[in-house]
Amino acid sequence: MQMQMRFDGRLGFPGGFIDPKDGSLEEGLNRELTEELGPGATAAYVTENDYISSWVMENPQKIEGHFYAKQMSLEDLEHLEEGALHAKDHGLEVMGLVRVPLYTLRDGIGGLPAFLCNNFIGKAKEQLLEALGCLGLMPQNKLEEAVWASQK
Amino acid sequence: MQMQMRFDGRLGFPGGFIDPKDGSLEEGLNRELTEELGPGATAAYVTENDYISSWVMENPQKIEGHFYAKQMSLEDLEHLEEGALHAKDHGLEVMGLVRVPLYTLRDGIGGLPAFLCNNFIGKAKEQLLEALGCLGLMPQNKLEEAVWASQK
Repeated sequence: MQMQMRFDGRLGFPGGFIDPKDGSLEEGLNRELTEELGPGATAAYVTENDYISSWVMENPQKIEGHFYAKQMSLEDLEHLEEGALHAKDHGLEVMGLVRVPLYTLRDGIGGLPAFLCNNFIGKAKEQLLEALGCLGLMPQNKLEEAVWASQK
Repeated sequence: MQMQMRFDGRLGFPGGFIDPKDGSLEEGLNRELTEELGPGATAAYVTENDYISSWVMENPQKIEGHFYAKQMSLEDLEHLEEGALHAKDHGLEVMGLVRVPLYTLRDGIGGLPAFLCNNFIGKAKEQLLEALGCLGLMPQNKLEEAVWASQK
């Protein structure tokens, strides 16, 4: 699982606002992915099948968010990490990509619980947990334990 | 300014414990930099002149820490970001490199203040602030404002 350090100092997922010129949600998302992740984003090409969930925020302005997740091979992920350094937004909107630790260390806090104590934009933390559950990357009880440990 | 997401889900600087085989602090640090940052670490080769400060922790065990900072050109930094993806520790001890936002956005919190609200290992947050001041990367009053905003 991959997230990015944003220009604003918070962790989030690649994405952004839809342009009037974008033909669909997915088209807009794929445009944003190319801007933020560069040429390697082709392996992350998103379709309707990758849709996970939506949310609406009312304040300070009405924003509708749509969340997609795409499973990739380690090889494609490594390719994406390399390409991202040459993306238009690298060093501007994106300060770096980070892999999410999908484990808890023996001390019960290092790993995913400590990662969840970072600063996330908007719904990114909830979306991360949702995706880990949906994609079966971590069993639900391990996820709940990690959230619990992060709140202590 | 560059930091890394660690395997334990916290942000920190590259480094590690000195080996009995290391001839000096700097030799040990340069060995660790090569393990964590890969071939591009040659541009970050550290000498006594890059020393910034030390600290001692007594609990749970006595640990002595030494902090070094090295100024690099943007070109060397980009080279280092690329090389780091091929480092021995990439995907194991190091989950990714991130640039630190050295500014505060107009909302007064985005940028360095929000970055400081992430989860840092040990003294890494204090060391970040110390290095930004020592190297003159940000004026002292801007640093203090960012720390203040991050605590609200």
